[in-house]
Amino acid sequence: MSDSLDRGSGMNGAESLVRTLINCGIDTCFANPGTSEMHFVGALDRIDGIRPVLGLFEGVVTGAADGYARMADKPAATLLHLGPGLGNGLANLHNARKAQSPVVNIVGNHATEHQRFEAPLTSDVEAFARTVSHWVHTSKNSQLVAADAARAVQAARQAPGQIATLVLPADTAWTAAERPAAMPDVIGPSQVCDDAVRQVAKLLSARPGKSAFLLRGNALRGRGLLAAGRLAASVDARLICDTFSPRIEKGAGRVMVERLPYRPADALTFLSGIEHLILVGSQAPIAFFAYPDQAIELTPSGCVPTVLAHPHEDATSALEQLANLLGGEDYSATVAIGNAPELPTTATLTADSIMQTVAHYLPEGAIISDESLTSGFGRPYSYLNSAAAHDHLHLTGGSIGQGIPLATGAAIACPDRKVVNLEGDGSGLYTLQALWTQARERLDITTIIYANRSYKVLNEEHQIVGAKHPGPKAAAMFDLDNPQIDWVGMAESMGVEASRVTDAMSLAVAVKSAFADHGPRLIEAVI
Amino acid sequence: MSDSLDRGSGMNGAESLVRTLINCGIDTCFANPGTSEMHFVGALDRIDGIRPVLGLFEGVVTGAADGYARMADKPAATLLHLGPGLGNGLANLHNARKAQSPVVNIVGNHATEHQRFEAPLTSDVEAFARTVSHWVHTSKNSQLVAADAARAVQAARQAPGQIATLVLPADTAWTAAERPAAMPDVIGPSQVCDDAVRQVAKLLSARPGKSAFLLRGNALRGRGLLAAGRLAASVDARLICDTFSPRIEKGAGRVMVERLPYRPADALTFLSGIEHLILVGSQAPIAFFAYPDQAIELTPSGCVPTVLAHPHEDATSALEQLANLLGGEDYSATVAIGNAPELPTTATLTADSIMQTVAHYLPEGAIISDESLTSGFGRPYSYLNSAAAHDHLHLTGGSIGQGIPLATGAAIACPDRKVVNLEGDGSGLYTLQALWTQARERLDITTIIYANRSYKVLNEEHQIVGAKHPGPKAAAMFDLDNPQIDWVGMAESMGVEASRVTDAMSLAVAVKSAFADHGPRLIEAVI
Repeated sequence: MSDSLDRGSGMNGAESLVRTLINCGIDTCFANPGTSEMHFVGALDRIDGIRPVLGLFEGVVTGAADGYARMADKPAATLLHLGPGLGNGLANLHNARKAQSPVVNIVGNHATEHQRFEAPLTSDVEAFARTVSHWVHTSKNSQLVAADAARAVQAARQAPGQIATLVLPADTAWTAAERPAAMPDVIGPSQVCDDAVRQVAKLLSARPGKSAFLLRGNALRGRGLLAAGRLAASVDARLICDTFSPRIEKGAGRVMVERLPYRPADALTFLSGIEHLILVGSQAPIAFFAYPDQAIELTPSGCVPTVLAHPHEDATSALEQLANLLGGEDYSATVAIGNAPELPTTATLTADSIMQTVAHYLPEGAIISDESLTSGFGRPYSYLNSAAAHDHLHLTGGSIGQGIPLATGAAIACPDRKVVNLEGDGSGLYTLQALWTQARERLDITTIIYANRSYKVLNEEHQIVGAKHPGPKAAAMFDLDNPQIDWVGMAESMGVEASRVTDAMSLAVAVKSAFADHGPRLIEAVI
Repeated sequence: MSDSLDRGSGMNGAESLVRTLINCGIDTCFANPGTSEMHFVGALDRIDGIRPVLGLFEGVVTGAADGYARMADKPAATLLHLGPGLGNGLANLHNARKAQSPVVNIVGNHATEHQRFEAPLTSDVEAFARTVSHWVHTSKNSQLVAADAARAVQAARQAPGQIATLVLPADTAWTAAERPAAMPDVIGPSQVCDDAVRQVAKLLSARPGKSAFLLRGNALRGRGLLAAGRLAASVDARLICDTFSPRIEKGAGRVMVERLPYRPADALTFLSGIEHLILVGSQAPIAFFAYPDQAIELTPSGCVPTVLAHPHEDATSALEQLANLLGGEDYSATVAIGNAPELPTTATLTADSIMQTVAHYLPEGAIISDESLTSGFGRPYSYLNSAAAHDHLHLTGGSIGQGIPLATGAAIACPDRKVVNLEGDGSGLYTLQALWTQARERLDITTIIYANRSYKVLNEEHQIVGAKHPGPKAAAMFDLDNPQIDWVGMAESMGVEASRVTDAMSLAVAVKSAFADHGPRLIEAVI
């Protein structure tokens, strides 16, 4: 083994990695490194071009990479420590996978010669990686690191966005390498086949009305959304999105999209009567969970969903082609009117009054990281339709603990925009360490904790499964009340300014102040 | 699908699971359930015999199950929510695996009919499970849950202790079942082959001196340790344990065992001169990490390790047989003298003075959950040799974030013993949510945070790899100082009484008070 670090003998594998990542457009590395990644840290230190951001837990790192990718439209790198370190990051990589976010994970492993021994940290790193990754590879030696890293970026950027995990044995970092690799060709979105567009056009021309577009991905943004608006206006179709979308452009002046309800029964009512369901980057709607004697497939009977664009296809162009074919030019009838809601008139703090207040004060261009879950469904969500134009990011993979890290990554990607994190108290506790990163990096994030002191969704679910009155042991599984979590103390212990509010007027004061200020703030809203 | 819950139609799959676990001797379930586990929660609620303990993060749940198993010598169950929920628990299951702790994971999955859809939480649960489990199985229907659960317990209890993961689709819980299963036969430790004992006896008789026993598992406890003491006295052999052992009985009146140093160079020095290395439930010593130009295998050259007992074999009986063969009866020369160390005389708070203080006040029968890492190596550790008799539990798998959950599980297993958790500030942050469980369950745990405001081990490692002076980007990866974590505020926010000390005398006052009291306490020791 030869150690080329700091010996002036040219580039080592770690340096070839960092230079390759820079060549491939990566400028941010969310990191929680360990001993086996020390040479990579050394290379990040010496080479300009990548901003390292420390997370004190790996779920912070991977959730931030997801938030960064959703807002920057390109991957960040993560730097993680062997199998168990990756393990801690899997839940938010699962969420990123469901969001189709591109992420490049760099995971250190024991040195090649060391792997045949049963050391404490020995594990099957690739097995950990395969649970969530579209692409997994282990570099065989330091000479191959640069090419492998370029392929990892290529895999991550393949449309619609993938999880790529490159495993680097420690010796591939410290041994000499030749040169970095260049940016590889990237497989972007495919063009939709003309037949698909013509078929949908024919369907909608023949029977206008009773049609809906189910939009996901780029169809919920920019030109895609405008084209969807033209279509909705011209053929009188509904525009629908999934209950949980990776990113939606919403608010004043934006084409409005209805959100599919969470509960299967509500979703069936919501979708009833639709005869033509056009899938644009989405799949036919299904229940989040199955329940005894309830439907899993939510497409109305008699309606056969038609694919306009698959997730890896160019939904924007497909929608524009279709709108051109159908002749609609004007989307203005589908646009949200730009009157932010008034402040709530009741003093009581509820899920409704929280969202109404947020919508009232929301600054133009804000980013919402939404893990409000049960508190955000239905009417509260509708307040945001007329708020100032913003981006809305949802929990995509159902694994709670995404919201605080996601906000962190979004704020790193968009330092000039206000980030608002709507966070359940149960969910927030999974990855609360992200607050420390927000404080360290002085990120412009306002976190609002919905402090209902319970896993409220589980209380509801327990009743749905038939147990109307949970006994004390079940109740203790849903209740976070004994003891209560003091979110103000928690946030302040990590350097984030915080306050607690228990009525709507105090919330309005706190939200107004936090939105006017710059930097991390947390508001514990007791509901 | 038929839902038998609360309909009086007999037992459902969830109830057959709970009754089977009770039949198999499981009395504790560490849980972080979700919707797909609601019927299991309902069954735990209605059936007496299993104590559910809620953790607010899955790493708390699995780390607690490890601590419970190490102290109770039997498995607890965990209850986890699909692939990503299990993902959050993998790091501490990795540690439990390396500790050879028996654990029975019950992981809910989507209902069988639902699994073919790409729902937000859809994942390959078995792939997550295989990363750390010795045994993985998915129940195919509700009728099979009882038998599968019995097999899971059987697998977990197979010597020396295994990780068994049973995946239960939601419909296997809510559909009718027939009856619970009985406790299955368990494969305990194998008897060591007589030849192995005779061979070691011959080796040690022929060349006494320059010999050492490397002990692990039951060899570090009770009769095994006494027999090791008889051997050490009679053939003048050293008694050694790994740097990180699952459980050691230590302190006054106990046979003393030397701890292998962490750094490879120190370990080589420590082991030099040993001609016969006898492995008792252990493997030949290897470096924790590989480094450029440093040894990985630490066995002295010329010494060929000899196996007395493999990890799955009965080390206690093998040591007793060997001691009987070699004629030694008296272990008293190897026993630690029972004079607890004096309090430190310096005012400065250091890793040394912390351990000296803990050793001074440690009550008889205490359990130490030790994640002090760099702060606990070497001299600090030696203070515990003459402390009151106690059990010492180490981080076994190198994945930090074990200490607080491990202490939690140990305290659940042993409610009448004081638990002391020596915790690094970097490590503690991974799974700090366990403090809330300690508060809720009023567990008798004193947590001492070594607040050095850094990943100290990484600072050292970075220097070892050759970068003497980390630049600002590297330094920021090791430093937890910006902002500082306020552990007192953090602990109090979760209901744990806490104090901060900055000198040795204040520490002594705080430790004395915490040890005299009952219930959770945290002391932030700023070093």
